[in-house]
Amino acid sequence: MSTMSIKPLSNRVVVKRLEEKTQTSGGIIIPDNVKEKPDQGIVEAVGPGKPLENGSVQAMSLNEGDRVIFGKYAGTEVTLDDETYVIMAETDVLGVVQS
Amino acid sequence: MSTMSIKPLSNRVVVKRLEEKTQTSGGIIIPDNVKEKPDQGIVEAVGPGKPLENGSVQAMSLNEGDRVIFGKYAGTEVTLDDETYVIMAETDVLGVVQS
Amino acid sequence: MSTMSIKPLSNRVVVKRLEEKTQTSGGIIIPDNVKEKPDQGIVEAVGPGKPLENGSVQAMSLNEGDRVIFGKYAGTEVTLDDETYVIMAETDVLGVVQS
Amino acid sequence: MSTMSIKPLSNRVVVKRLEEKTQTSGGIIIPDNVKEKPDQGIVEAVGPGKPLENGSVQAMSLNEGDRVIFGKYAGTEVTLDDETYVIMAETDVLGVVQS
Amino acid sequence: MSTMSIKPLSNRVVVKRLEEKTQTSGGIIIPDNVKEKPDQGIVEAVGPGKPLENGSVQAMSLNEGDRVIFGKYAGTEVTLDDETYVIMAETDVLGVVQS
Amino acid sequence: MSTMSIKPLSNRVVVKRLEEKTQTSGGIIIPDNVKEKPDQGIVEAVGPGKPLENGSVQAMSLNEGDRVIFGKYAGTEVTLDDETYVIMAETDVLGVVQS
Amino acid sequence: MSTMSIKPLSNRVVVKRLEEKTQTSGGIIIPDNVKEKPDQGIVEAVGPGKPLENGSVQAMSLNEGDRVIFGKYAGTEVTLDDETYVIMAETDVLGVVQS
Repeated sequence: MSTMSIKPLSNRVVVKRLEEKTQTSGGIIIPDNVKEKPDQGIVEAVGPGKPLENGSVQAMSLNEGDRVIFGKYAGTEVTLDDETYVIMAETDVLGVVQS
Repeated sequence: MSTMSIKPLSNRVVVKRLEEKTQTSGGIIIPDNVKEKPDQGIVEAVGPGKPLENGSVQAMSLNEGDRVIFGKYAGTEVTLDDETYVIMAETDVLGVVQS
Repeated sequence: MSTMSIKPLSNRVVVKRLEEKTQTSGGIIIPDNVKEKPDQGIVEAVGPGKPLENGSVQAMSLNEGDRVIFGKYAGTEVTLDDETYVIMAETDVLGVVQS
Repeated sequence: MSTMSIKPLSNRVVVKRLEEKTQTSGGIIIPDNVKEKPDQGIVEAVGPGKPLENGSVQAMSLNEGDRVIFGKYAGTEVTLDDETYVIMAETDVLGVVQS
Repeated sequence: MSTMSIKPLSNRVVVKRLEEKTQTSGGIIIPDNVKEKPDQGIVEAVGPGKPLENGSVQAMSLNEGDRVIFGKYAGTEVTLDDETYVIMAETDVLGVVQS
Repeated sequence: MSTMSIKPLSNRVVVKRLEEKTQTSGGIIIPDNVKEKPDQGIVEAVGPGKPLENGSVQAMSLNEGDRVIFGKYAGTEVTLDDETYVIMAETDVLGVVQS
Repeated sequence: MSTMSIKPLSNRVVVKRLEEKTQTSGGIIIPDNVKEKPDQGIVEAVGPGKPLENGSVQAMSLNEGDRVIFGKYAGTEVTLDDETYVIMAETDVLGVVQS
């Protein structure tokens, strides 16, 4: 079990992708090699905000636990303790999914 | 039926494309594989506006329900509950269609 | 006949291209497939102006009805009611043609 | 004879290229297909200047009638009444030729 | 043993990559030519901060000894006394790893 | 003999390249087709300086007669009265050669 | 012996690369054609600093004689009196090597 965590810098967030779908909505099982990476995830950590030229810091909009949606190629994938995360700027997050 | 919705960040809007035309204006039925994606849609959700360097937020011009026109390659397509949306910055919206 | 119109956002204008020339200046009829798109048009609609960082809006220079000249690849072509328009930023308009 | 003229927007100028040389300095006649476009021209019209973020307008340095020198690929070529002009931003003009 | 050190300029940090894994998590030994460069390292030196247009300096967030995570292609590799370091802007550091 | 001159706009300078070397330092004569363009020249004319957003003009550092060094691909070559000059922004000049 | 020197403009520095290594650390002699250019050098001259929009000049951090480390492709190579230098912006210098 992971005891390490990533504290993002600036306006970045650490996101854990939701599990890949293993079935289509029609119930067909998707083989591993054609699964596409989901474009949603849960925010695991939120940076302090981007430092501005005038010395202040731009507040973040996202919070830990937010379910976010983002472009398939947004951010950088990193691996920590065999878990994979996506670290991206908050500006790369398209929106928050609400239910 | 979808019970989830996307709340866009910053100056983004969530747009549902209008249905693809299935007939030409002359009445000819267009086969699925040559339909082109329509460049119009309905705004489903509007972000809070872009945070500015001076601490204020730039107001949005668009409203929910607006019928908008945009470039074919604008924004990012996302899928939620098997519905596809385009999320784009308001600055990528070319105009509002009025009747 | 079109009863819909496009209200452009920000500093954009909606332009209807002038008809393509069907004859050369020497009277030779140009076949359809070699006609080149004219780089002039009439401004059909003018956006409210670009919002500035300081909260004001930059006034537009163009007016409806202006005959404008622009680069062949400026703007984005859109189709509304089977009419094609070019929507471009005012900064992509090179000049106004006066007679 | 042309009775139309182009009024450039922003910081643009309308330039008429000088005639292409038809002889080398040694008197050899240059065939049409190897003539290179001259990089000098006469300013036919001057825009009002670039609007600045602070609401003022940046004054232009060029005047009608100036003979200017510019890069071979500067600006956009446009045709009006069968005359060809180059419309370019004043910042693309390299200098003024004085005799 | 190295007696030289690099003092980074501006908002840069000098990072020593963590050792490459020589075994997979399952215990399989990875041959040299397929090892991938780890995307974590230890901050060895921190620059004074980026000079701003207003004459002040933007404070750094990182400290010597921080374990950082960064994109595989971030920064520039340099060699000093046969040791290899990565020098990158603090803005290229994705986050700090905490245990 | 040239009686025309170029008055550069903004922060540009007009530079006359030094003569190409026709011998190597060891005395070997370099055939015409392998001569490389020298990266030094003499400043022939200096622009008024770049207009700034705040309405003032940024003073120039270079003076007529300065021997300058610049990148091989800096600036734009122009020909006036069969003389070739390079017109470049002062910011493309790397330094002044002093003896 | 060189009696000419380069006085760099703006925020540039003139750097003389350290001699290329002619032996590996293990004592193997490196043939000329595979020597790689060293990424260290000595600062020979320092520019006055970059002029800022507000009329002041941004002070330089480097001093003559500093041993600096930089990216292999930073700056522009120039030759003066058969000596080769690299002229680069101070912002392209990664750090100062201290012993």
